[in-house]
Amino acid sequence: MTRLNSFHLPAESWPGNQNGPWVLDGPEARHLLKVLRAAPGERLRLFDGQGREGLFVLESAERGRALLTPESITALPLPQDRLVLALGWNKSSRRDWLLEKAVELGAWGLAFWRAERSQGEPPTAPKDSWQDKLVQAAKQCANPWLPQLAVIPGGIQGLAAFAQGFEQCYLCWEKAETRHLPAPGDLGRGRVLVVLGPEGGLEPVEADRLLEAGFRPLSLGPSVLRWETAALLCMGLAHLDRGSRP
Amino acid sequence: MTRLNSFHLPAESWPGNQNGPWVLDGPEARHLLKVLRAAPGERLRLFDGQGREGLFVLESAERGRALLTPESITALPLPQDRLVLALGWNKSSRRDWLLEKAVELGAWGLAFWRAERSQGEPPTAPKDSWQDKLVQAAKQCANPWLPQLAVIPGGIQGLAAFAQGFEQCYLCWEKAETRHLPAPGDLGRGRVLVVLGPEGGLEPVEADRLLEAGFRPLSLGPSVLRWETAALLCMGLAHLDRGSRP
Repeated sequence: MTRLNSFHLPAESWPGNQNGPWVLDGPEARHLLKVLRAAPGERLRLFDGQGREGLFVLESAERGRALLTPESITALPLPQDRLVLALGWNKSSRRDWLLEKAVELGAWGLAFWRAERSQGEPPTAPKDSWQDKLVQAAKQCANPWLPQLAVIPGGIQGLAAFAQGFEQCYLCWEKAETRHLPAPGDLGRGRVLVVLGPEGGLEPVEADRLLEAGFRPLSLGPSVLRWETAALLCMGLAHLDRGSRP
Repeated sequence: MTRLNSFHLPAESWPGNQNGPWVLDGPEARHLLKVLRAAPGERLRLFDGQGREGLFVLESAERGRALLTPESITALPLPQDRLVLALGWNKSSRRDWLLEKAVELGAWGLAFWRAERSQGEPPTAPKDSWQDKLVQAAKQCANPWLPQLAVIPGGIQGLAAFAQGFEQCYLCWEKAETRHLPAPGDLGRGRVLVVLGPEGGLEPVEADRLLEAGFRPLSLGPSVLRWETAALLCMGLAHLDRGSRP
């Protein structure tokens, strides 16, 4: 399945039943028809980014739209294990890169929050360009789930509210008194939230607020890692833990 | 120590005894004197990238050279635990990024080898620009050890020869029959070599050659990770394992 070219059809564009019509348009159709010059009869994969995917055959093309026939459609059950990272906002050139890695490593979500030491102000909502990054990455690695993006308002208070509904909440904090390094399974099982500060770290009062709210401190080793490295390591550990199970 | 600005003085420029003279010149001196506009009396950190570092005071500047006085000098013992990655060569725009992460995550070395599916030809020796990347990264994260860079000649045969002298040799191979995911300690203890293919993976004959030579296959999960993601995950696991020990 990963060998077929993948195209994103947003969930709201999937027809109510298998009879269709199945229509790909916009940039994805342009990629299929103009860039790849697909001919009728060619097979491709569609995914909605919410666990639904299918194999399709290109029937015909008209006015930049591709008409498709389904061969098989699969709706995956919602995973039990879902890791969400809440990342202190940064004016970081590494954000796009992190979005790509979140898809590749199967993170469930990325949420951005404004910390005391954040540089700049996050937008009020996730940008379309972030979603585009996710889609591009998912086309490459065939992950049927796009990470959910969020911007958490209200600083540390908002973050504490956002943490409701998670089974495990961790705070990556290099100044924690006890150095608990993540064990296999800490980050990969259940609904897990991991909070990371921005470059420059958390103010002690921010860390205290989260520890009081029941977050468990987590260390990623004696040296202070960069923002994107710490985030990738958390996502990678969860990925490995999920992969270690049948 | 990490708060002080760090400057790289290559090992061959360290004077034979503490009396010096201690001279910083070239781009590092320019950075200190022109960019940071350091004044006499300011303290700074020097490192040679081979485990030696020290605190110094700027005495004077003349003709673009900084004359320094040592306050304390430390020579760290050679670490017992040394992870080297042998990476299939790629024309990858991610190489610079990987060099930076190798420093940040304390990898001992990066070696590049030409695999069957490598795109392009690696240079015969590591490029100066790669070393510059390492130095820049080490100045940021204050790692006193610069990873050792190598280009391994002779393809898979050369790689098997390079593997002599390591205590553990692993092959990241997504098509291995047994799926052994790295446990804590697999990659962080002793002299460990991990081989990764280029983007596009290894030819089965290459993998067979290494397995016959005693390499143990390693999986990083059911999905195929990109080159730089797999490399970072291996380095991150070793980093965490080292960090978990007192």
